[in-house]
Amino acid sequence: MIVNCVAYEKGRRLQDIQTHEIVDYLGAPDRFVWVALHNPDEEEMATFQKVFDLHELAVEDALNGHQRPKVEEYGEALFMVMHMITMCDDQLETGQVAVFAGPGYVLSVRLHPGRGFAEVRQRCEHEPKLLRHGPAFVLYALMDTIVDRYFPVIEALQAELESIEDEIFVRGTARRSLERLYKLKRQTMKLKHAAMPLGEATAHLFGGRVPALCRKTREYFRDVYDHLHRIESAVDTIREMTITAIQVNLSMVAIDEGEVHKRLAAWAAIFAVATILAGIWGMNFVHMPELDWRLGYPLALLVMGGTCGLLYQRFRRAGWL
Amino acid sequence: MIVNCVAYEKGRRLQDIQTHEIVDYLGAPDRFVWVALHNPDEEEMATFQKVFDLHELAVEDALNGHQRPKVEEYGEALFMVMHMITMCDDQLETGQVAVFAGPGYVLSVRLHPGRGFAEVRQRCEHEPKLLRHGPAFVLYALMDTIVDRYFPVIEALQAELESIEDEIFVRGTARRSLERLYKLKRQTMKLKHAAMPLGEATAHLFGGRVPALCRKTREYFRDVYDHLHRIESAVDTIREMTITAIQVNLSMVAIDEGEVHKRLAAWAAIFAVATILAGIWGMNFVHMPELDWRLGYPLALLVMGGTCGLLYQRFRRAGWL
Amino acid sequence: MIVNCVAYEKGRRLQDIQTHEIVDYLGAPDRFVWVALHNPDEEEMATFQKVFDLHELAVEDALNGHQRPKVEEYGEALFMVMHMITMCDDQLETGQVAVFAGPGYVLSVRLHPGRGFAEVRQRCEHEPKLLRHGPAFVLYALMDTIVDRYFPVIEALQAELESIEDEIFVRGTARRSLERLYKLKRQTMKLKHAAMPLGEATAHLFGGRVPALCRKTREYFRDVYDHLHRIESAVDTIREMTITAIQVNLSMVAIDEGEVHKRLAAWAAIFAVATILAGIWGMNFVHMPELDWRLGYPLALLVMGGTCGLLYQRFRRAGWL
Amino acid sequence: MIVNCVAYEKGRRLQDIQTHEIVDYLGAPDRFVWVALHNPDEEEMATFQKVFDLHELAVEDALNGHQRPKVEEYGEALFMVMHMITMCDDQLETGQVAVFAGPGYVLSVRLHPGRGFAEVRQRCEHEPKLLRHGPAFVLYALMDTIVDRYFPVIEALQAELESIEDEIFVRGTARRSLERLYKLKRQTMKLKHAAMPLGEATAHLFGGRVPALCRKTREYFRDVYDHLHRIESAVDTIREMTITAIQVNLSMVAIDEGEVHKRLAAWAAIFAVATILAGIWGMNFVHMPELDWRLGYPLALLVMGGTCGLLYQRFRRAGWL
Amino acid sequence: MIVNCVAYEKGRRLQDIQTHEIVDYLGAPDRFVWVALHNPDEEEMATFQKVFDLHELAVEDALNGHQRPKVEEYGEALFMVMHMITMCDDQLETGQVAVFAGPGYVLSVRLHPGRGFAEVRQRCEHEPKLLRHGPAFVLYALMDTIVDRYFPVIEALQAELESIEDEIFVRGTARRSLERLYKLKRQTMKLKHAAMPLGEATAHLFGGRVPALCRKTREYFRDVYDHLHRIESAVDTIREMTITAIQVNLSMVAIDEGEVHKRLAAWAAIFAVATILAGIWGMNFVHMPELDWRLGYPLALLVMGGTCGLLYQRFRRAGWL
Repeated sequence: MIVNCVAYEKGRRLQDIQTHEIVDYLGAPDRFVWVALHNPDEEEMATFQKVFDLHELAVEDALNGHQRPKVEEYGEALFMVMHMITMCDDQLETGQVAVFAGPGYVLSVRLHPGRGFAEVRQRCEHEPKLLRHGPAFVLYALMDTIVDRYFPVIEALQAELESIEDEIFVRGTARRSLERLYKLKRQTMKLKHAAMPLGEATAHLFGGRVPALCRKTREYFRDVYDHLHRIESAVDTIREMTITAIQVNLSMVAIDEGEVHKRLAAWAAIFAVATILAGIWGMNFVHMPELDWRLGYPLALLVMGGTCGLLYQRFRRAGWL
Repeated sequence: MIVNCVAYEKGRRLQDIQTHEIVDYLGAPDRFVWVALHNPDEEEMATFQKVFDLHELAVEDALNGHQRPKVEEYGEALFMVMHMITMCDDQLETGQVAVFAGPGYVLSVRLHPGRGFAEVRQRCEHEPKLLRHGPAFVLYALMDTIVDRYFPVIEALQAELESIEDEIFVRGTARRSLERLYKLKRQTMKLKHAAMPLGEATAHLFGGRVPALCRKTREYFRDVYDHLHRIESAVDTIREMTITAIQVNLSMVAIDEGEVHKRLAAWAAIFAVATILAGIWGMNFVHMPELDWRLGYPLALLVMGGTCGLLYQRFRRAGWL
Repeated sequence: MIVNCVAYEKGRRLQDIQTHEIVDYLGAPDRFVWVALHNPDEEEMATFQKVFDLHELAVEDALNGHQRPKVEEYGEALFMVMHMITMCDDQLETGQVAVFAGPGYVLSVRLHPGRGFAEVRQRCEHEPKLLRHGPAFVLYALMDTIVDRYFPVIEALQAELESIEDEIFVRGTARRSLERLYKLKRQTMKLKHAAMPLGEATAHLFGGRVPALCRKTREYFRDVYDHLHRIESAVDTIREMTITAIQVNLSMVAIDEGEVHKRLAAWAAIFAVATILAGIWGMNFVHMPELDWRLGYPLALLVMGGTCGLLYQRFRRAGWL
Repeated sequence: MIVNCVAYEKGRRLQDIQTHEIVDYLGAPDRFVWVALHNPDEEEMATFQKVFDLHELAVEDALNGHQRPKVEEYGEALFMVMHMITMCDDQLETGQVAVFAGPGYVLSVRLHPGRGFAEVRQRCEHEPKLLRHGPAFVLYALMDTIVDRYFPVIEALQAELESIEDEIFVRGTARRSLERLYKLKRQTMKLKHAAMPLGEATAHLFGGRVPALCRKTREYFRDVYDHLHRIESAVDTIREMTITAIQVNLSMVAIDEGEVHKRLAAWAAIFAVATILAGIWGMNFVHMPELDWRLGYPLALLVMGGTCGLLYQRFRRAGWL
Repeated sequence: MIVNCVAYEKGRRLQDIQTHEIVDYLGAPDRFVWVALHNPDEEEMATFQKVFDLHELAVEDALNGHQRPKVEEYGEALFMVMHMITMCDDQLETGQVAVFAGPGYVLSVRLHPGRGFAEVRQRCEHEPKLLRHGPAFVLYALMDTIVDRYFPVIEALQAELESIEDEIFVRGTARRSLERLYKLKRQTMKLKHAAMPLGEATAHLFGGRVPALCRKTREYFRDVYDHLHRIESAVDTIREMTITAIQVNLSMVAIDEGEVHKRLAAWAAIFAVATILAGIWGMNFVHMPELDWRLGYPLALLVMGGTCGLLYQRFRRAGWL
């Protein structure tokens, strides 16, 4: 589905155009066409492949939704794949955006549901001075938006980690903490696999041999790179703390176990003493004077209760109860 | 065994030829010969070694089935070793394919059982425009096929991991989960050792100093490289989640243990109290008025039952039972 | 808020100047202006952006308090972001300092509370010979001060680790050690994420292609780099020992558990023997001669006590009690 | 001890020569001398040091048996140290071979017991076409032999790992598995420290700036490098699976513990019920009608036995017994 | 404190000189002055700073005892910091040596107690042929000595590891092993942080762009580098085996726990059976014929003892006792 197809000149919107008109706008030095597609079918893609002379392998990748984030050069053109990641009801959802940028055109191909990029176009059109940089600036604007959308995700993951950390030293929550930690780890891996390869790829757009298209917008790509680095180091922290938290969780389970054991042992000792005493006075010796005392029974009960009480107190003081 | 031996010109199949005819087709600029062998004996290999002037070390490697995946240059020719990995009844099976590609020839040597490459030849012959690129394109087509066959394997491993994850927080499945996780780790290592060195090797076919043979097909090799990278990052995720899952499994065992302990302890307490009461009324004091009551016995049983019931309820409420 | 705005010539303080006067001092070869801002608002920044011709992206970063430490070149100018880390009541507090340094100016932007840099200015003004090196030396002086402030933090963390190590082999402190270790790990990660990226960035200021601005002060930046390296290796040690300590902690919990088990088991055995003996003499056989002995009862108690005492001694000798 | 001292010309053996004759054979373009020493004393080494003009530091290393595997250039000459590793009765034994190779000579110095290289000399003398490449080919032949001798070791380690894996999920073998895993890890480290540095060193003999001596035999060294890489990746797999196996082992111990606990708990419950019942009928209430029944006692025993049997069945069904 | 101040010419000792005479010896091509300081005060350092024209930052580092090992170039001069590590009564002690080496001088600054370098000077003076290489050779000799002093330390650590390994599979030593392992890890980290940065730094003295001063002594520095590499790989092994040993230790604790549990459980079962039997014969049924038997009591005791004996044997055979 074609979402938009607009021609620009010197950074200013000229007009919405039809697919077949695109050719008229290609080749002019200050002009470029910016097309946005959403879940296109193969036929649509074939049209644009012809118009913009896109490489077959790149087109395949744009249609297939399971690519790694990457930046590839095809002659003077660039092909970029990015993952869109959003937090929906505690679940991470992934979409894919492929962008073809060459002299005179930008074509973005968005797959799967997920927020569109209307705001990016709007923002760009408000800054004609920057949009004059042409397709590279549009590419930057798209990257910047996608990467900025990672931040709420990382913040949600950090918040989740902090909430687990509050719970981890509390008794009786081990199982739930564990499930949450496992899920957190899984989600962090997903974010990492979106951000890290993109970071590596972006590095080529401002350092070393920079593609001709991006030469005037290097600082912008470096800025995106920097954001990706921040995400990576946040991911790194979450990952490492998650591992630690899982180990701590296990230790806490063991410590709690130990405390439960002590409590049980204390009670067992108390019961055992009472049982022995009852057993002693239940013996059938003929000559057991206390058995004949009038107050023998209540005294026996007192002794039993007293001993148990004493033990109870001692265990209490030792912190076992 | 010679599976196929076909001569091509300008990307089109000329005809099936005999081994001794090969020399007639070598040296012509637009022609090349594509030979496919399966479990060849030393003699067969010796013939082709002479015909194509293959290096002795490469021939040895092609016949010996335990090579690392790699790409080696011998003058203008390339020698590549790849692992074929297939999932058979829950087990990973490994085969080896060695490919010699030089100006004017491609020779593929397949060892061990495993699917052949008839489909690759067919597909290539349907695209003469691409097959014109010559041996390098055939090399690409073989790589692409082998690497594409890794994807069902990685998907099977991912599915296995997800199935284990569903099980891991369920009680009483720890032993089985553990066995499955161990096996999963082992299989993932196997896939990793097939994909990773191949990825490293492939990088030399499109970046840096590219061998002359591959110069026009760089983008294709980059595509294969990209697929290998996707596999690597999937392997990476599986590996890391497996490690985490094993730790989680251990924690779950400890947590479950703790819960079993509590349940047992609760029952022990209940039994202990009943035992003490019975012991008390079994004492032989002369003056134990309740022993003489007409309803003493039923009352005693009631008291015992009642106390046990009370304890039961309390433990229940505390979540121990 | 403008903290200071001073013009310097040949390393000597000329005078405090107003924002609008800055332009008069730019461009002169031996002069430079050093401005210090604290939590500036967007308007203030906009003024300086115009005066010093700062890049829009750098200005954004300086105002936004969540940057990664980094050094970026914008033409001849440098833009650096650093984290200030201080230990306040057992908690790490982070602030951010951004420094713009170009030919003829240095602009430092400090965000969040945190110690200022009055001492840096003072120290610089006392060494006009060094301050002659211009903005690069000021940049160095700021970096040096910030990095030197990391050392008390790392020392506090090392002290904390040592204090935990003293505790870790002591019984009954497992839970507290664990909480402290977890917190220590978290804080160490924070310091690492301040120091490590800064170290990487600083490396570009003395090795390889050094920015023109810093060429005469290379050795100074190498010195800062060296300090950052020391911090990194200290962080590395803390991190690794923390991981080990957490594992040791778990083992100690298990060992302590085992010892508690043995103690309990010994007591259980002692009680069990007494219970059995009482049970035996409580049997109702008609012919149990000892029941009729005059000293039967005291003897029975003696036997019970003696057996228990013997067992107690034996367990004691075995180290179970 | 001089094992051999032979002069070669154009790849063919000329004759055995004496130490003092060596000088006569040096300097001739197609000739070289191949000397093999075993545990030489300092005096012997001093002779050869003079004859071949060896560097003092290299000679020291050759005599001292605790070197890291390495390749060093001294002018036009190469000095290589390798570890020989053999499996003797379940133990790894390490020897050291140092090889000096320069224009016109190869000198191998073997320390400690260990298989000699007579087979290498024989094999080389059978292929004069290859031996014509001179000292570099001899160097290759020695490396190839040593590295090939690593394979039986790695296979033994893999076999040991597989045998442990079969055992690890079996009950009651935890302690033995653990001892075997620990030993396996230790031996794997040894092999790794023999193979890995050698691999790094070998890389310089075929890639980048290759020493003049080896320029014609690059492909051979690449082949050795490839073998070393295979060993490394096998070592890597063993290492990672060992770590996993140790964790699995711990989990299995915990799981087994849990099962033992359940079994014990079940028996404890059965015993406890019987004890309570006996206690109840041992109470001294006057009015306990069943005590007077003629069949009271057998009935009581039946009830006790029945209850225990019922419990037994229930636990059995729950999988606790 | 000045330990020595000697002038050398063509590798031969000229004479001991005074500080103020040093200038007379500087600048002559074949001469150099070698000064050794121990714990110098700032004034002393200031003198030498002037005489040798040392860089302020380097002098600071030499006086401050907490530097990372490093090699820095200041113009034609080199500045090196090394850690001296010695094993004193089971504790590692660290000292610092800073060496300034430039054309015509070597100045070594030793801080903290620790063995001096008189032997180095002696050894150097015995080899005038080598000492002719000038300051670089002295630098090498100092490095070589310091690095050689690491070997006894690493051997002590290896011996400690082996001694712990012998203990780790023995029962009842878990706590002590753990304390030793933790300490071993700490000490290994210390050695690593002395050797590793020095290794990195040394690499620049023989490979790549070598400082002019060291160009003729490259092989010597490579030798030191090699020694450092051996230490690193030994450290690596100790570190990895320590981690494994800690895990094994935990597993052994769990296994031992399990065995203790089984033993206790067996005894509990034996006691429980005896208790039940005593309870049964203590019941008050009127018709319990065996109670009236003359031999009832001894028979009962026999039955009790027999049952217990039988159980004991069975548990024994099952390996629980």
